[in-house]
Amino acid sequence: MDWTLGELAHCLGAELTGNPEIFIRRVATLTNARVGDISFLTNPRYRHQLANTRASAVILGPDDLDKCAVAALVSDNPYLSFAKAVAALNPESMPAPGVHSSAVVDFSAEVDKSAWIGPLSVIEAHAKIGPGVMVGPRCTVGENSVIGTNSRLISNVTVCRGVKIGARVILHPGAVIGSDGFGLARDGERWFKIPQVGSVVLGNDVEIGANTTIDRGVLEDTILEEDVRIDNQVQIAHNCYIGAHTAIAGCVGIAGSAKIGRNCTVAGAAGISGHLEVCDNVHITAMSMVVQPITKPGVYSSNLPAEPNSQWRKNVARFHQLDTLARRVRDLEQQLIDLREKLNDR
Amino acid sequence: MDWTLGELAHCLGAELTGNPEIFIRRVATLTNARVGDISFLTNPRYRHQLANTRASAVILGPDDLDKCAVAALVSDNPYLSFAKAVAALNPESMPAPGVHSSAVVDFSAEVDKSAWIGPLSVIEAHAKIGPGVMVGPRCTVGENSVIGTNSRLISNVTVCRGVKIGARVILHPGAVIGSDGFGLARDGERWFKIPQVGSVVLGNDVEIGANTTIDRGVLEDTILEEDVRIDNQVQIAHNCYIGAHTAIAGCVGIAGSAKIGRNCTVAGAAGISGHLEVCDNVHITAMSMVVQPITKPGVYSSNLPAEPNSQWRKNVARFHQLDTLARRVRDLEQQLIDLREKLNDR
Amino acid sequence: MDWTLGELAHCLGAELTGNPEIFIRRVATLTNARVGDISFLTNPRYRHQLANTRASAVILGPDDLDKCAVAALVSDNPYLSFAKAVAALNPESMPAPGVHSSAVVDFSAEVDKSAWIGPLSVIEAHAKIGPGVMVGPRCTVGENSVIGTNSRLISNVTVCRGVKIGARVILHPGAVIGSDGFGLARDGERWFKIPQVGSVVLGNDVEIGANTTIDRGVLEDTILEEDVRIDNQVQIAHNCYIGAHTAIAGCVGIAGSAKIGRNCTVAGAAGISGHLEVCDNVHITAMSMVVQPITKPGVYSSNLPAEPNSQWRKNVARFHQLDTLARRVRDLEQQLIDLREKLNDR
Repeated sequence: MDWTLGELAHCLGAELTGNPEIFIRRVATLTNARVGDISFLTNPRYRHQLANTRASAVILGPDDLDKCAVAALVSDNPYLSFAKAVAALNPESMPAPGVHSSAVVDFSAEVDKSAWIGPLSVIEAHAKIGPGVMVGPRCTVGENSVIGTNSRLISNVTVCRGVKIGARVILHPGAVIGSDGFGLARDGERWFKIPQVGSVVLGNDVEIGANTTIDRGVLEDTILEEDVRIDNQVQIAHNCYIGAHTAIAGCVGIAGSAKIGRNCTVAGAAGISGHLEVCDNVHITAMSMVVQPITKPGVYSSNLPAEPNSQWRKNVARFHQLDTLARRVRDLEQQLIDLREKLNDR
Repeated sequence: MDWTLGELAHCLGAELTGNPEIFIRRVATLTNARVGDISFLTNPRYRHQLANTRASAVILGPDDLDKCAVAALVSDNPYLSFAKAVAALNPESMPAPGVHSSAVVDFSAEVDKSAWIGPLSVIEAHAKIGPGVMVGPRCTVGENSVIGTNSRLISNVTVCRGVKIGARVILHPGAVIGSDGFGLARDGERWFKIPQVGSVVLGNDVEIGANTTIDRGVLEDTILEEDVRIDNQVQIAHNCYIGAHTAIAGCVGIAGSAKIGRNCTVAGAAGISGHLEVCDNVHITAMSMVVQPITKPGVYSSNLPAEPNSQWRKNVARFHQLDTLARRVRDLEQQLIDLREKLNDR
Repeated sequence: MDWTLGELAHCLGAELTGNPEIFIRRVATLTNARVGDISFLTNPRYRHQLANTRASAVILGPDDLDKCAVAALVSDNPYLSFAKAVAALNPESMPAPGVHSSAVVDFSAEVDKSAWIGPLSVIEAHAKIGPGVMVGPRCTVGENSVIGTNSRLISNVTVCRGVKIGARVILHPGAVIGSDGFGLARDGERWFKIPQVGSVVLGNDVEIGANTTIDRGVLEDTILEEDVRIDNQVQIAHNCYIGAHTAIAGCVGIAGSAKIGRNCTVAGAAGISGHLEVCDNVHITAMSMVVQPITKPGVYSSNLPAEPNSQWRKNVARFHQLDTLARRVRDLEQQLIDLREKLNDR
């Protein structure tokens, strides 16, 4: 899909410098761009590449404009403008509405006539599939579940029974929404399974990554507010509550009944314990372990960066003696005080 | 499904205080309960909510009875009684036996006539599906696999070839049982794949979470004894052996040929190295790394709780110098000894 | 499938000691082997089991030959010979070529006549399935994707649109190749999704574990070179580049635009940050966190091994004071210098 640079400037709300009639076909990095491509400068470390780019135009911030030898789209948020340019030049294609002949749709399910149900998908009893919804190949929408307007289940998604999904939600392949929470009571030596009778509610514009799992609540619902964005292989346990606009990167695990605030970010493979609250505007760095409530916005971290193995072995051995080491330092401090007093007495 | 409080007391084996004729429809938390609900007090921190609950009855321990203004079911294990109440009020529904017309069942497979095979599932050659088994939508039961009585494959479960699954086992969506172990031999610079010819054996009452993977053994089987409970996104590598009644929380990884004892608990995102043994009654806390055998029951931990990033940066820098720091303390101790001797000599 | 020991020696390129006419049916461990089995000694810690094995023959290195009471296949790389013996005695079975009647194959897809498409699989428009390819039950091959010669999609694999897969690639159940990367731009308080228009390229002989996810690139492709081996539940983010012969164990997460060298190994549950480079021949130990580029081959580690909980609590408390402790040691050193000077002045 071709745009003129002028159309693109208008669509992005960016200020154009250069010829508005240039045709733009693709977005590419500064080094890979060729004629017909628009590139972008959003990270100062690539600034030196600007001079030599073959792009027909570049998206950039006002401060970089003077170094730009080609046409430019100037934006106060060039990363967002870049994102919008990619979206403009790569429009989503939507299959024609209808139900594929190999799909299995229960007679009591309600499928909007503008929705598409792909091959080998299952729509169970009393499920409701809203207008413009796309259910890709090999998905399941469970009994009594609701999929809101224009949401997309890409492929091989499992939505269990009674789940409520908002509008414009995207569920990536392998995602499981509404699996049983891990609820067990000890019965002597054995485990007794606690039925999980709550469900999952996903707000509008939520996105759930590939092979991510979101468990249903025990009695009440697991809730993700609008515009929560979750990457791949994340585990959200039963009765979690995640505030709007929070983004959670790959491999994170969040234990049961944790409450995460709005506008938080949780970086890859971090873990958050259950039954605690993290306030709004908290940023957890990669592989951190959160075991206490966080009541103050800010950046929180734990875990140790890798070092050469031989050095690490020594430091780990010392860590295991850290309490003893601290006591030895305390002793030394006391001995020095004693010694000084003794000297003063002489 | 409605119960009278008297029927429920009988079913739970709890002592009833109050009117046995009250109708109970639902289990709810102390704060959310209304008339017709039974609530529960299993965690002392919610004790203050007992006075104001609108529940028709509360499940609690004998020590809390005097603070309860409504009817009560008194139990020595109120958490278990709560679990049983949820189960009683939310009975599982089982589809009518039969094979859905869209399922693909090999002519050599044996499907008990009381079992249900859901839409778009595949039952391969010589597989055996026992009495009362429920194979939900979009599952695969591989060649020669056996599914024991009353087991349930919820949805989109993959049981590979030759796997043996006991009775009353529950496999949640996306679980993969019997994938190849990660076995490779170096052949110069290249890898040579070692065929994985063992299988997986799951005992009775095992539960496997959503998107959890359990690899088949190299030559012998990967084995989970009865009543092992595994949460979502867990990885169990080839030839692991997990003892009865052990529970493993989400995102845990267990490397090949590890042997975990009975009645253990492994909290979320912990990791256990291969070729080691963990004895019975061991409890591993969240995100811990077990790299040595554990021979004594107890609680084991590692990993560092998150702290504000600025503080963490300083502490991490110090960790990387920890061996040096310990040597400096040793030096200080020696210097102080020398100094004292010197002073005594004067 | 039975082999004579002589045939097996020839196939493995090993030197035979003993009767070449012995029939071999199975590979088994030294303790489990019986008549008709071949066993192996590849780990010195099992050397004591050699004397009592009932195996008909043993694969071993030249140094162990004198302790072997039965026939032997002597190899300079006994682990590789063991692997080849398992492969020889357990040949892969390949279904007869063809498309299962329940599969949904788009009329514009090209399926080689020697390929097999299993039950309930979906081959989308313009996909190309090469010679000898096996697409197991319940897989999806997306629009415009290409599957190279003799590759195998075991079961329930999702290959998204436009993915290029080489020859002899193995994709295990639940793997997702080509899911959208996690690309978001802030638009005020909201997130704007960056369309992911790159794809994934897997080289020849790549192996991808169960429930592993590999995201497509933003503009360019995520690339795995030949013979990269990836275990279960691994997350590879958009635009990663992984060099040939690198092996990555279960539960690892690699963030966007990381470049991993050739012949590396990454042990279980390690994490690698985005936008950094790890050079060839680097070995990362389990659960390590790599946040800086690695420019020198070697073994790198972080994380702390588990210890008894009571001890850990003390050490963790000290870790949070580590910077303060180090300052206290610095103070002590200074005080001691001052004290000595003072004493010398007397």
